[in-house]
Order: sequence, then C-alpha cells, then structure tokens
Amino acid sequence: MNGEYMAAEIVEQPRVLARIRDEGWPAIREVARAVRARAPRFVLFAARGTSDHAALYAKYLVETRLALPAGLVSPSTMTVYDARPNLRDVLFVAVSQSGGSPDLVEPMTRARAGGAITVAVTNTPGSPLAEAAEYHLDVLAGLERAVAATKTYTAELLTLYLLVEGLHGGDGAEAAGIPMLAEEVLAHEDEVARLATRYRFAEQLVTTSRGYNYPTAREAALKLMETSYLVAHAFSGADLLHGPMAMVDRGFPVIAVVVPGQGGAALRPVLSRLRDLGADTLIVGDPDAVALGRVGLALPRLGPEALSPILTILPLQQLAWRLARERGGDPDQPRGLKKVTETW
Amino acid sequence: MNGEYMAAEIVEQPRVLARIRDEGWPAIREVARAVRARAPRFVLFAARGTSDHAALYAKYLVETRLALPAGLVSPSTMTVYDARPNLRDVLFVAVSQSGGSPDLVEPMTRARAGGAITVAVTNTPGSPLAEAAEYHLDVLAGLERAVAATKTYTAELLTLYLLVEGLHGGDGAEAAGIPMLAEEVLAHEDEVARLATRYRFAEQLVTTSRGYNYPTAREAALKLMETSYLVAHAFSGADLLHGPMAMVDRGFPVIAVVVPGQGGAALRPVLSRLRDLGADTLIVGDPDAVALGRVGLALPRLGPEALSPILTILPLQQLAWRLARERGGDPDQPRGLKKVTETW
Repeated sequence: MNGEYMAAEIVEQPRVLARIRDEGWPAIREVARAVRARAPRFVLFAARGTSDHAALYAKYLVETRLALPAGLVSPSTMTVYDARPNLRDVLFVAVSQSGGSPDLVEPMTRARAGGAITVAVTNTPGSPLAEAAEYHLDVLAGLERAVAATKTYTAELLTLYLLVEGLHGGDGAEAAGIPMLAEEVLAHEDEVARLATRYRFAEQLVTTSRGYNYPTAREAALKLMETSYLVAHAFSGADLLHGPMAMVDRGFPVIAVVVPGQGGAALRPVLSRLRDLGADTLIVGDPDAVALGRVGLALPRLGPEALSPILTILPLQQLAWRLARERGGDPDQPRGLKKVTETW
Repeated sequence: MNGEYMAAEIVEQPRVLARIRDEGWPAIREVARAVRARAPRFVLFAARGTSDHAALYAKYLVETRLALPAGLVSPSTMTVYDARPNLRDVLFVAVSQSGGSPDLVEPMTRARAGGAITVAVTNTPGSPLAEAAEYHLDVLAGLERAVAATKTYTAELLTLYLLVEGLHGGDGAEAAGIPMLAEEVLAHEDEVARLATRYRFAEQLVTTSRGYNYPTAREAALKLMETSYLVAHAFSGADLLHGPMAMVDRGFPVIAVVVPGQGGAALRPVLSRLRDLGADTLIVGDPDAVALGRVGLALPRLGPEALSPILTILPLQQLAWRLARERGGDPDQPRGLKKVTETW
C-alpha cells in the first residue's frame, strides 16, 4: 500500500456529503423531530479521538444555535468510578466511527438507564454502540479502510450539523452547497502538495484556530501525528499566547485555520502577534487573512462559518497525506495506530 | 528575584488548606445549602489555564458524587458568537484566581441573565467576576505574587471539593487531614530536587494520569511549561497509547501520576506498556506502583483518592520550580507569561 486507501477516501468526501444531504437528512430529521418532542434541556456528547473533535464542533453548535447548555462527558467517571448519573431531560449523543469502543458503549448504556434520550452517531449500523442507543444515525460514509479517519470525520460533522438543524426546526438548506464547495476545496491539491514540502524536516508543529474551527485545528494536529509521526499540538487561539509561546519561540511552525466570520475575526490579534514574533505561520482559509502569515492557502468559498469546519479540514487531510509520503511513510500504515480505540 | 515568591507560596499551601477547612468551610457550606435548596440539575464550569484544571477536577466530582451531568463551557460561544443560553436549573461555577478575566465575566453575566444559579470561586473578593455572580466563594489563599499559580490552585481544588461535599449534604470530614498530609508530601523536597537534575536537558516532556488525577497531569505540564520554558504535553492515559506514542518513541520522558484507587488501577496497563516500550517514566504517587517506572517518587499517604489531586500536584510544583532554577531561570520571571489571562 502507498496510502491509496486514505487518498481515495479523501476524494470520496464530496460524494459522502451529498449522500448525507440527500439520503441521510430524512432520517436525521425524523430523529431530531422525535428528540425535539421530548424537549431535552441539556446535551452531553461522548466520543474519543477524531470523533471527539466532531463532538466538540457539535457542542459549539448546541450552545450557539440551540442556546442549551452542553458538555463533553468524561467516560472514565462511568467506566472507572462507576458513576450512574441522573440524566432525565438530557440528550446524550455518542459519536464513533466504528461504534465498537467499549469505552463508549458502557457510558451509553448507563446514560439510557439514567433516563437520557440517547442517540448514537456511527458509521456502523448494528455496532454495539448503535444497538445500545435508542436512536441511531448512520453517517453513510461507507466502509473506511484507511487507519486515519477522513471521510467519517466530515460525515460526522455534517450529520451532527443536520441533527442540530433538525432540533432547531431548521430545514438544513444552508448545507445544500457543501458537497460542491468540498469539491472546490479539494481542487487545491497541487498547492497543498507544494506546501507539504516545506514541512519535510519539521519535527514539531502547532495548529490553532478559534470557535467553530478550533476542532479543525485539533483534528489537523491528530491527523499529522497519526500519519507523519511528527509531534503536533493544537491550541485554541485564546490560549496560544500563554504557556505555548515556548513552542513558537523555539521555531515550531504554526498552522492557523482562519475563516471569514466571528471566529476568524477573534483570531486576528493572535495572528498579528505571531507575525510580530517572527513565527512561521501557514494561514489556511480566508483569502483576506493569508497576508498575515508567512505562507497561505486561500480558500475563496467556505460557505457559512458554522459549516466551514467540514471544508477547512480537507486541505489539512491532504497535507497530512502528502507529508507522510514526502517523508517516505505510508499514510495507510502509520506506526502504532489501531482503528478502534480500546481503553483498558 | 530568584523564585522566592513561588517557593514561599508552595510551602504556604498546608496553611492555606487549613484556613479553608477551618474558616472557609462555614461559608462554603452556607452557599452549598442555598444552592442545594434550588436543586440544580446540571452543572457548568467556566475557567481558563490553571483554574481550568481545577474546574475539570470539580467536573469529575460532580459526575461521580452528585451523579449530575456536567460540562465545561466554551467561553467563545458567548464572547465570540454571542450565544445567550437558557440556563434554568443550571449551576454555573466560574473559577478564576484573579476574578479579572473579561473572558469569564461576560459568560458569568450571561449565565446569570439566562437563569443559572451562579457561583464565582476566586481569590479576589470584589473582583468583577465575584461581583457578577450571585454567590462568591473566596479561596482564602492570600495575595499570590508568583506568576505561576500554586497555592491558588490547591485552594481552588479544596474549595470546589468542599462545595460538592456541601451540595451532597456531606460534612467535609474526609478533608480534615489534608493540610497535614500536604505538609508530609512537601517534605519530600530533597528527593524532588534530585529528580529535577535528570531533566536538566530535557526539551520535551509528557505527563499522564487517569480519572481525578488527570487534571494533575494537565496542571503539571502547564507549570513545567510556564516556569522552565520546556514543552510539556499532558495526555489522559486513555489516549496516550494512540497518536501520542510518537512522543514516547522519540524518547520524551513521561511523568505519570498514579495513586492507590480506581484511577491508578486504570492506569496500570498503560504503565506496563510504557515500560515494555522502554519509555523513561517517572511514577509519582502510589509506592506499590513506582516499580513500574524508571524512577519513582513514592508518596505513602495520599488520603482518599478523590482528595489526592490536592496532594499529588505539590511535588510537581516543586519539580517545576527546581527545574527552572537548575536551568538557570527564575521561576518568578518566566518568559512570556502574564498573570491575568486576557483574550482578545
């Protein structure tokens, strides 16, 4: 193998997104309608790894669009400390590509026993997690062969976005153009390939963003670590200028995800500061912001800010793939990585 | 200065903890009683930096001891995206040493307007955050002069522990011995000083733990980054054997916090795996676990597991201080660090 699986799954994403929009939405809307009728007042998410980044994105959406309090559960309180929380009026959403992580099935079972409205979002109908939940949403990404998750991540993002839309009584129309925009963003592949060569000898990287795209920064760091075996650290722009400045001072390159809108605006002062400090920053996103970096990847059409994380991760997946190849590795056989997260 | 402020504040901690136990508890109990009468059903925490680690600890306590759902708020949803959540029946607790971070005052104001029961936990009565909340708990640590927070962290931990105790209808008796145990743990200073020399030339470090002490691993990493300007990364034991193994493979030393009890037990398989991989692991805590590491700091008396984070951080504060001095730095004048977190 030479990374064919991951490469194929990266380019497959516009089709997966279109499938969710066209075939997935009716089922998502039905589940949202049923959940909405029960008027949840608090939303909890449970996930690990890549899916945890999708859950974090959804948590922002719940806070901003549904104006409900939300949290990410610490699975260990249930699996290690045997907590049995009272979850009446709570919507409990577990997100997992495989639906097979025992670290999530047990919390899901307890959440349901504790009175929560339970939804599993997985790529594997019939998985233990899907079976344990009252409602199941299939993210319709098809079998994912690559060890590094790509298409299941964006499929989870869009599914969760549409779930929140449904809970909000929306029609999901804003998402209609996302598959086409994804196609456009993926077409920057040659530019990404040129950028990847810069990082051939980088040992460490910092990624950053704010708001809806903070999960993008986290997911990009994980993808780079998984496939290229370099050390990548994600920071919220709010934290970057404190402890982590040690990394910037040492010359670790920074990758900043900046989109038009409020999240990008909130990140601007951080970018100016990084520039003043001489940081080597790659700006991915807003064409009006790329001048703030040493290098840039301008993405002219990113749609509404709340949906942009589905698009901004795409060139960073391509970057991770390219860089792994550039460094002589096989993105489909990264060192020390298994597909299903099992926690002892 | 040569780190005198930080050194003095580290040794002051047993006195601060005794003050909270003796003088603070009546006020904490009163607030807990008032909050309890209003029967909150969800708990949200808001904090940044060191206080965020105290909030994470408290979130575990709420999930395990109160069996209530809990979450850490993403302040940016309110400050960047203007969210105005409906927080009826929500207990909203903001934790901040200074009480001055605008990034927390605005969410506190909105939480109160949104119907939450609001509690500010700060070391600064009269601060904007304390004023914005319905209830204020003073952590009674006295003026903190060092830039790297130490005594305010353990003071926040004990105050939050006692708040949860009060909400639970407990008498806080389990915490009675904590000041004396803190004194005992701090007496290992010479051992810590010897250990610090090993890390004289370490550029990077990984810290890890599970459960109640995962916040200890996070706080230790932050303290090492702040004072010694090295790069430290904290991982939950549940995640350490996945992406981050790249760091262990590269020879980054690991510091693992292991205590007797369920959290320590859950970490054991990770420690065995690290040993098999040849990792350079320092085990801090359970005397029965130190043999699993390359080096160890045995702490024979750590009290009940749920209170142990107040104790396990102490030698790691000492380590951060020693290491900064060892490397020729001044722990009281770390590079690029301000006392109040301001986010643009």
